Amino acid sequence: MVRLDAWDKLSGRLKFTGDMKVHGMLHAKVVRSKIPHGVLKGVSDSEALGIPGVIAVYTAEDIPGENQVGYAVEDQPLLAYKRVRFIGDPVAIVVAESRRSAWLACQHVEVDVDPLPAVFTVEDALKPDAPKIHPHGNVAETSRIRKGDVDEAFSRAYVTVENVYRLEHQEHVYLETEAALAIPESGRITVIGGMQSPFLVRRMISRVLGLEESRIRIIQAPTGGAFGGKDDMGPLVCGKAAVAAYNIGRPVLLVYNREESIVSSNKRHPAIIRYASAVDRNGKLLGVKVDITMDVGAYANRGPYVLWRATFHSAGPYHVPNVWVDGRAVYTNKVFSGSFRGFGDPQIHFAAESQMDILAQKLGMDPLEFRLKNALRPGQDTTCGQVLDHSVGIVEALTRIREASGWDKLRRLHGRDKGRYRRGVGVACAYHGISTSKGVPDYSAASVIVNRDATVLYRSGICMLGQGSLTGHAKIVAEILGIPLDWIRISERDTDSVPDSRPTHGSRGLMAGGTAAADAAWKVRRKLEKVARKILGVNGAIRFRNGIVYAEDSPEKAVSFRKVVEEAYRLGIIPAAYGFYHLPERYFDPETGLGKAYACYTFIVNVVELQVDTLTGEVRVLRVWSAADVGKAIDPLLIRGQIEGAIVQGIGYALMERLVLREGQILNPNLTDYTIPVATDTPEIMEPIIVEDEYRNSAFGAKGVAEAALIPTPPAIANAINHATDIRLKEIPMTREKILKYLEGEES
Amino acid sequence: MVRLDAWDKLSGRLKFTGDMKVHGMLHAKVVRSKIPHGVLKGVSDSEALGIPGVIAVYTAEDIPGENQVGYAVEDQPLLAYKRVRFIGDPVAIVVAESRRSAWLACQHVEVDVDPLPAVFTVEDALKPDAPKIHPHGNVAETSRIRKGDVDEAFSRAYVTVENVYRLEHQEHVYLETEAALAIPESGRITVIGGMQSPFLVRRMISRVLGLEESRIRIIQAPTGGAFGGKDDMGPLVCGKAAVAAYNIGRPVLLVYNREESIVSSNKRHPAIIRYASAVDRNGKLLGVKVDITMDVGAYANRGPYVLWRATFHSAGPYHVPNVWVDGRAVYTNKVFSGSFRGFGDPQIHFAAESQMDILAQKLGMDPLEFRLKNALRPGQDTTCGQVLDHSVGIVEALTRIREASGWDKLRRLHGRDKGRYRRGVGVACAYHGISTSKGVPDYSAASVIVNRDATVLYRSGICMLGQGSLTGHAKIVAEILGIPLDWIRISERDTDSVPDSRPTHGSRGLMAGGTAAADAAWKVRRKLEKVARKILGVNGAIRFRNGIVYAEDSPEKAVSFRKVVEEAYRLGIIPAAYGFYHLPERYFDPETGLGKAYACYTFIVNVVELQVDTLTGEVRVLRVWSAADVGKAIDPLLIRGQIEGAIVQGIGYALMERLVLREGQILNPNLTDYTIPVATDTPEIMEPIIVEDEYRNSAFGAKGVAEAALIPTPPAIANAINHATDIRLKEIPMTREKILKYLEGEES
Repeated sequence: MVRLDAWDKLSGRLKFTGDMKVHGMLHAKVVRSKIPHGVLKGVSDSEALGIPGVIAVYTAEDIPGENQVGYAVEDQPLLAYKRVRFIGDPVAIVVAESRRSAWLACQHVEVDVDPLPAVFTVEDALKPDAPKIHPHGNVAETSRIRKGDVDEAFSRAYVTVENVYRLEHQEHVYLETEAALAIPESGRITVIGGMQSPFLVRRMISRVLGLEESRIRIIQAPTGGAFGGKDDMGPLVCGKAAVAAYNIGRPVLLVYNREESIVSSNKRHPAIIRYASAVDRNGKLLGVKVDITMDVGAYANRGPYVLWRATFHSAGPYHVPNVWVDGRAVYTNKVFSGSFRGFGDPQIHFAAESQMDILAQKLGMDPLEFRLKNALRPGQDTTCGQVLDHSVGIVEALTRIREASGWDKLRRLHGRDKGRYRRGVGVACAYHGISTSKGVPDYSAASVIVNRDATVLYRSGICMLGQGSLTGHAKIVAEILGIPLDWIRISERDTDSVPDSRPTHGSRGLMAGGTAAADAAWKVRRKLEKVARKILGVNGAIRFRNGIVYAEDSPEKAVSFRKVVEEAYRLGIIPAAYGFYHLPERYFDPETGLGKAYACYTFIVNVVELQVDTLTGEVRVLRVWSAADVGKAIDPLLIRGQIEGAIVQGIGYALMERLVLREGQILNPNLTDYTIPVATDTPEIMEPIIVEDEYRNSAFGAKGVAEAALIPTPPAIANAINHATDIRLKEIPMTREKILKYLEGEES
Repeated sequence: MVRLDAWDKLSGRLKFTGDMKVHGMLHAKVVRSKIPHGVLKGVSDSEALGIPGVIAVYTAEDIPGENQVGYAVEDQPLLAYKRVRFIGDPVAIVVAESRRSAWLACQHVEVDVDPLPAVFTVEDALKPDAPKIHPHGNVAETSRIRKGDVDEAFSRAYVTVENVYRLEHQEHVYLETEAALAIPESGRITVIGGMQSPFLVRRMISRVLGLEESRIRIIQAPTGGAFGGKDDMGPLVCGKAAVAAYNIGRPVLLVYNREESIVSSNKRHPAIIRYASAVDRNGKLLGVKVDITMDVGAYANRGPYVLWRATFHSAGPYHVPNVWVDGRAVYTNKVFSGSFRGFGDPQIHFAAESQMDILAQKLGMDPLEFRLKNALRPGQDTTCGQVLDHSVGIVEALTRIREASGWDKLRRLHGRDKGRYRRGVGVACAYHGISTSKGVPDYSAASVIVNRDATVLYRSGICMLGQGSLTGHAKIVAEILGIPLDWIRISERDTDSVPDSRPTHGSRGLMAGGTAAADAAWKVRRKLEKVARKILGVNGAIRFRNGIVYAEDSPEKAVSFRKVVEEAYRLGIIPAAYGFYHLPERYFDPETGLGKAYACYTFIVNVVELQVDTLTGEVRVLRVWSAADVGKAIDPLLIRGQIEGAIVQGIGYALMERLVLREGQILNPNLTDYTIPVATDTPEIMEPIIVEDEYRNSAFGAKGVAEAALIPTPPAIANAINHATDIRLKEIPMTREKILKYLEGEES
């Protein structure tokens, strides 16, 4: 099975947005604030406009519609208006005949700002006398869970532990930086770019241009990685290109370079998590009490959703009868945070799963055994009181990974070294609710058209981000129609020709989008079944397989799929349909945080074997096993890809990626100083273990796997480091320097 | 009501294919045969390739798939192979960096042809010893009707008349000449061009490139007129651009100039029709005996369909119990004939309606009265025995036009002049089966997506050719959803995103396409009705009007359409649907020609008042009334547009348009020498009279009107000339020279 977008990518033929050239195209570049907080008094463009090839400089005043792109909170302008709130805040767009002229002009746009006192930490931001970053104050959102009686639970605990965990930023480092190409036509505009939701981009552009949605056409260009980041950045970058193109009446290409991308794009939320856990004498979790503070940066963006997701998952994939959570998302004068693979779950699970090991240690229990004891079973309820009656594969995942990794042997073997190199093995679990957080309505759509030559056009609003979701959709369609996968052609993601499919985030691409694909395929199949019955002269069930259509009862009565399609067209029965998916209802009480937060959950366990060099502090991750309950594995190879990618990104997050900020200024906006895992950092072996505990309400029972394996990677590493060295790191990233300091006892 | 494509056209903003510019685009030009019939021995391109900027010269050998674009018969290569059959037959495609280089190179491609004896008239072609133009001989198709006993009918007739009618070519003269832009991508190709059926173009290109349909994307560019011609030319021109672009791997633009367009594009079929009619003493038609010979030119193209349409309509819109027709489509070494507004019906009705006047004269009856007496009534059968049980508006049309035109008075007033200027008034009827001929299966599809802001995206495979069909579709959707027309946006015609809607021909655009639109709109409405019931707390019927949705029983319970849409999305109910239309079954027996040839018929009557200048032979058409039974007038303004355009094109056909050929060479391939009606040739008054005899199986009862008014225009003119001057012209065109000769008695 070859991923359908593979050849074009491997051969380099695929055109990303930045490769596109349109007749009469101009180039844009964004002028940004160099001051973290201040009053924007004016923008002087006269010098810039004097540079040859420079066509225009647009500011907030030139936005035809509303200058508002806030997602959860109405706090973010497309271009800064009267205030700048972080170093990198967009102030103006320069448009020129060439990239070079645009770049040059940017240096000559003068931005007049009166500095204001700035705030760089959440602690400072929460002080009563802190400068207000937004008129409504420095708290963007709060969250909570009130389940059972936590104080009572703690009072009767056998063991309690309480720790504070601190997590820093993570940068997405998608290979392709942000880019958008906007092409105005009479009264309309088409915008092509990297993104995760063409429909959200359309909606945002509709707002900033003051134009009906029907006049805006959004096409998702081939997108070179996203990891959640382009869900947030898509509308912002496309919006800027759209404003420029719409104002000037010519196509405009806007491409960020790496520095601009790092300086201005959303990051994984830094967080401070105070986490107290209580267990009884038998090692059963009694309760957790959690306090979460997330740093959203200058704008709330998806912060409220990320906070709620962390809140809903705060007790981990265990049955915990008493839960108390308080959370808050806090503004600071730094680049804004936002969507990133895991979406709050990596942060909360780092705390929760570190706690699990600390508890196990205190109880004298094996940490895997301890987890198995507490793991959610069908019929039990999650952190937020959601009872799961099926598709709860955590016990099977734990059982199988124990076996596959040789956990018990490794655990005995390692953790005893006293020399320079010390090996350890650690485990961590996670669960991840599939689809959008906060009970947002969720649905998806797809289109299947069988052409007269029996080839199939498949269309979805779900985006191809390199993850291969749409190959999964195509497999579902091929399975239902009983045809080879290569008869199916995936069309562009284009808002003009598929109904709103909602964003490609929350690991919903396959679950929500694929189920819509299945609905469309079934509708088409039912039409073809009628035609086949006519051809075959039978009344009973019809089967579709390997391009052959036959009667279930008498398989010798068979006809080719192609022939059935031809006959359908001859009869005027067009084998085409839209398919829809509507996620089962979700709801929650914002006062108690209790409810049905997600339709279903993916469960995952990672076991990490690593070696610590106690001289240099270097950690080498040697082997990682990752057992995931994905519901149903539509494509095992794609799942392996997702799991391996997530593990490596999790290793980067855990051990090496560090955004260095000074007074809100990012000091390492480049890939020399911001280091991510390279080939030599990847584990020798990454072993996915697929658990299939089918979900009842999706195509073939599939859940999602895009984010899952990242989540338990950092705590499994922390736990393995502890196993190897006895040091307990409660911070991310766990850089060499920090490990050395801990080893030297400075911060232990 | 403003036609939705009007502003862009009026303002000149609309980009036709020839205006398009794509990065890296090359220009193509076609090398054509200068010899009417011969053996193609070779093509020498070495000199052409030496011209700077020339990239390639492609011949039949370079076609990746099958070199076959025959429509009804497999007789037509995309590029001539071993044979050339008319002056203009395409032999090679030159591709160059500029239009100029391509043009230059064409002059230097040497085409080596051994001439063969050629045939230029159908009479010569039918001779036993005639050179064979195709291996299967010179007859492309035959047709027939055998209804009742014609000999018996003639034997008991009171009056019989028999005449031979001769009709020449007509050129489409669409304002925009043929053009196509082909853009290859890895393993795929997109072709944009003027056309009438993107799906047919896809199918043809699939064949010539040997590529599955799913790898070919066809987009109908704004098309500057078509009149049937681009149904035939679309695949040929797009196919040539596609072969060049596919071979070379770069975008290729191919634009015909006017000369190339006239030399190489299909024309209205010349015909020779021998027509005998018999009536009884009471003026009731007893029978007709018709012999039709159509000249298809070098390739059959749509000839067989045109022949059958003429055959099915040969007795006119009257009840004629006994019909005998023999027809044949014959090859000659001339430019091929094909689809043209009316599609065989103008030819056959010219004969049939001239006969009607001649019969009336012999009977001493008023010609309108005579027609009224014989006009089809519900329950009676057509030429081919098809019983029409409803929507037969010919009697009402005749009655109303008699009144509106003041027929009886005009008839008395004119026809008595003896001076230089003589006025006359004539009438002619016609009927025109809606949709494709020969019982071809017919269906259509459409897509309606209501966006979250309540604007609507409408998509159809029916083409916009300047006729405004899709505005009609949008009106249907607006009516059903009860929203203003300007909330609806019509998307591109794109094979990637709408199911096969079949061609835009046979006046089916509104009837078939509009009914699919209605189906889609109704499906969406039913979804929204459910949501509205929930919002309004009612169970009964829901009405949609003026953007308001309300309960039929209690209209005070109302909510805005927009709100209903928002709530639908909130509930995950996506207001989107494909709509389909499947034409009621048609069939006919090829032996007897009897059956159900069309789903329904548009009926039309024209009354023409004109003045003949007996000194110059000039005919001035003064006033035309045109009464059309359109089923239901979806848009009266668009109907007026179609009727006026058809009348003027009919005047051109009747009086002035003449393609001059010598030995297969068109001597007037330009608009200086091939004259069409200009503003001063149009009647002072053209008065459409809309008759609405609703058709049961289409949206709101609409039939089609695109072709109708052209059909009776030439015979009404001939009849009016006869009324004015007593001369009877049995030829088209009735040029001044011919009228003078008739007046001088030379040919009367």
